[in-house]
Amino acid sequence: MTRKAPRRTAERILVAALELFNRFGEPNASTSMIAAELRISPGNLYYHYPSKDELINTLFDQYDHGVTELLAAAQDVRDVEDAWFFLHSLFELIWQYRFFYRDLNHLLSRNRHLETHFPALLMRKKAALRHVLDHLRADASAATPDKPAAADLERRQDAIAASMVVVLTYWLSYEYVLQPRSAMEPENAQDALLRGAYHVMSLLLPHLDDGARMHLQALLQAYQAPSLP
Amino acid sequence: MTRKAPRRTAERILVAALELFNRFGEPNASTSMIAAELRISPGNLYYHYPSKDELINTLFDQYDHGVTELLAAAQDVRDVEDAWFFLHSLFELIWQYRFFYRDLNHLLSRNRHLETHFPALLMRKKAALRHVLDHLRADASAATPDKPAAADLERRQDAIAASMVVVLTYWLSYEYVLQPRSAMEPENAQDALLRGAYHVMSLLLPHLDDGARMHLQALLQAYQAPSLP
Repeated sequence: MTRKAPRRTAERILVAALELFNRFGEPNASTSMIAAELRISPGNLYYHYPSKDELINTLFDQYDHGVTELLAAAQDVRDVEDAWFFLHSLFELIWQYRFFYRDLNHLLSRNRHLETHFPALLMRKKAALRHVLDHLRADASAATPDKPAAADLERRQDAIAASMVVVLTYWLSYEYVLQPRSAMEPENAQDALLRGAYHVMSLLLPHLDDGARMHLQALLQAYQAPSLP
Repeated sequence: MTRKAPRRTAERILVAALELFNRFGEPNASTSMIAAELRISPGNLYYHYPSKDELINTLFDQYDHGVTELLAAAQDVRDVEDAWFFLHSLFELIWQYRFFYRDLNHLLSRNRHLETHFPALLMRKKAALRHVLDHLRADASAATPDKPAAADLERRQDAIAASMVVVLTYWLSYEYVLQPRSAMEPENAQDALLRGAYHVMSLLLPHLDDGARMHLQALLQAYQAPSLP
């Protein structure tokens, strides 16, 4: 069964929009640039996506769907190697849709769909990281020598997961501030993703028992990326 | 000695611009809004600041100056109480100029002055946090039970300081994503600053010796802010 032409055009528009948004930032990539890139008329683009926000929202729904599928894998994280792989996959997905993170607040301030759905996305990421943290430190009573009360421990674990989400969410923005001309370019991807995963995993490190910590140290050393300037 | 009127007007423009940028976001606050707020003509505003970027740059220089003065105090951090106070002051300053952080990447992509100076600002913050971290853990050999090599330890400490800077820099953005309608409002300031300082300090926690850790725990408990939704 062959797919119909209109569907193919709609898909090509999405691919081109994602690429231009990622390359120039969403505020700097107009729908007419996207149409020109594809050599289609603005009217043709408009037929498929009557507004730029519909393009953005469709891309967001794709991303949201991908994240949801990936987060389900947090349940299967058994050791630090699984955790590393999980986190690296999450960073790869974020990289694919990095334009959302480049101008997140600006997008949220004028797009109701994102404003409504992005908080839930971050909360689901936080819950998944919290699951990984709880699971990996389950036997690590040594990691909390002061034997905190249950409510205290809950609050601490929550704080660690929240900081992990902040680093996960804003690592690429941080790289962008430090090197605005190159951070978002495809050739920087591999290093940026490794550095991001390294920093998020480093937050886990002190909360693991000795064996897991040594294991994670070895992994972090094996997947070392060049330092930022 | 009384100050001259033109100087007063230039100052009033800065104050009004900062307030409107903080309230609505810089991309949503025009120079004509600022002039209207002050009941002066756009020409009068233009006489003092020939472009919006000159307003932004003057505000940045004020902020940069404030940060530099504050960061010098990192040298005097002797214990976790000093560190808490230092960090809270830093968050207060960030809050005063929060519009930079709301649309940071967008600002950087079109303002050469910010693009050049913001990276150095983040690097100075990181160096100050690294100093605090090194100083507070100086006697805490217990906190690195696996006795890492010097280069490894250097890299770990650097990673912790970098994650602290990311949480410091993007905490307010994170709050903004979770509650875009209220996060930047003045009545949220106290809680947001406490939560931010709490999360950055929490990253220090596992790297302290027992006494300092208990002390910090007590502080974190005393300055507890309501959880985010």
